[in-house]
Amino acid sequence: MPSFSWRFIINPEFWFSEKYTDSCGITFKVRSVLYTKESDFQRIDIIDTYDYGRVMLLDGLVMYTEKDEFVYHEMITCVPLFAHPNPKDILVVGGGDGGTVRELGRHTYLNSITEVEIDESVVVAAKEYTPFTGCGYDNEKVNLIIGDGIEFVKNKNNAYDIIIIDSTDPFGPAEGLFSGEFYSNVKNALREDGIVVAQAENPYYDPKWMMRSVNNMRKAFHNNVECYLAYIPTYPSGMWNFALGYKGKKASESFDIKRYKNLNLHFRYYNKNIHRACFALPEFMKEIMQTI
Amino acid sequence: MPSFSWRFIINPEFWFSEKYTDSCGITFKVRSVLYTKESDFQRIDIIDTYDYGRVMLLDGLVMYTEKDEFVYHEMITCVPLFAHPNPKDILVVGGGDGGTVRELGRHTYLNSITEVEIDESVVVAAKEYTPFTGCGYDNEKVNLIIGDGIEFVKNKNNAYDIIIIDSTDPFGPAEGLFSGEFYSNVKNALREDGIVVAQAENPYYDPKWMMRSVNNMRKAFHNNVECYLAYIPTYPSGMWNFALGYKGKKASESFDIKRYKNLNLHFRYYNKNIHRACFALPEFMKEIMQTI
Repeated sequence: MPSFSWRFIINPEFWFSEKYTDSCGITFKVRSVLYTKESDFQRIDIIDTYDYGRVMLLDGLVMYTEKDEFVYHEMITCVPLFAHPNPKDILVVGGGDGGTVRELGRHTYLNSITEVEIDESVVVAAKEYTPFTGCGYDNEKVNLIIGDGIEFVKNKNNAYDIIIIDSTDPFGPAEGLFSGEFYSNVKNALREDGIVVAQAENPYYDPKWMMRSVNNMRKAFHNNVECYLAYIPTYPSGMWNFALGYKGKKASESFDIKRYKNLNLHFRYYNKNIHRACFALPEFMKEIMQTI
Repeated sequence: MPSFSWRFIINPEFWFSEKYTDSCGITFKVRSVLYTKESDFQRIDIIDTYDYGRVMLLDGLVMYTEKDEFVYHEMITCVPLFAHPNPKDILVVGGGDGGTVRELGRHTYLNSITEVEIDESVVVAAKEYTPFTGCGYDNEKVNLIIGDGIEFVKNKNNAYDIIIIDSTDPFGPAEGLFSGEFYSNVKNALREDGIVVAQAENPYYDPKWMMRSVNNMRKAFHNNVECYLAYIPTYPSGMWNFALGYKGKKASESFDIKRYKNLNLHFRYYNKNIHRACFALPEFMKEIMQTI
């Protein structure tokens, strides 16, 4: 055995990789694993990373990172809110990290914010380890219900102005949130002028998954569905799609500039020009939307 | 030694990783390495991959992939071409893979397409191993000059309508293409209404590099500079920035719809709505552009 002076002290390097397919993905170095739990629904990990700050993984997939979660959470809230003529009551399905209700809480003109999250463990972990999103639950307007969003919307009629589907990917606990029956119930739960928004995957790696929610939304909303995009570097391809169904005016052509200016919030991604620009889709994506 | 029946036959897996920082990056599986050369300027590799088809690496960094090169090459050509009122003579600095001149060649209203590429080995490799870009040189209008673009533009006055800086990253052979002196010479080489476009990195990982070309372009073009964005999944962050300097009208407000309609080309990314939308910048990027 060599003496101590011969030895090199090498710190182990821990890297996380998320595979986008069997043969490609993102990889990043992990400073430490802060939390790990097998809940009733999924495996939850919260890790601290060098490049992205704290990151929540569900079943080994990146849900959000401290560095870029602002893009997702601003874009899933601001676009429907400012496209709607007068939103008052909002329902969030999923969104257990709190980032979506945190953003909704900044829109002080809202009356109520209801969230139905199936996995309480996600909420508990986010409050403890990612307070930058978990702080969303500190707002008194936020009413958190632990339960199944699919069951919850079944009995609702004419109850909400906007419904936000802030779900995981379309397998495992979130699978039903991409189905046709669910969107049909969502439509009934919406009032006149109502808008539904769902995170809807990406067209580069997962065009079929993307189109599953888009097509089911189209059936329920008589083709009154638009997609919009945002740059999210820690999601597959960096090009993230949101599907939006509307009962009133076309969302891409509606923008309540008066409310936007009066509110005078400081956003980090969203602005007036982004509101219109995010609906401009590249040709290859329009082709996917016509053929799948 | 165990007998043959005991042995597992395991094919080796080769993975390529490009690090965006010391602690994060993209990783993908390689089917085979088709070509490797140390040229006078850089190391060139062409690899075949499972997800992205053929990929050219220069000094170990992804230059383009068969799957998504269309985004970069359409966006670096169509935006200046349709923003300009009447482009006739185009200069490309760099672009040795041929993708940019391939796209320019489709715009049949152009008189001349000149490319100055410093590294002939890149052109030779692209023609042989990535004919989907190398085919750009088959067009008789394309005049390829092997030489130093920095020297080339020094002696040019009032010679081009559009100059496209299709370079590698701002270190190594391309470093001078991000300098103030270079952009000053580019401005002199442009005619009235002239436009320069340069690939200009990304705001998530490399805001300082991004701002180096933007700021030097601003000095030469008296702040008549705009940035525009495209989704390119195999470039760092997937959010790619182009810097555009103009001598005539503001590019984001100029679009020659008549020429666009007459030409009637099938693009895979670019379209009328993208032309305007790509200039809409997220708030955090506008802040970077005001502070760095």
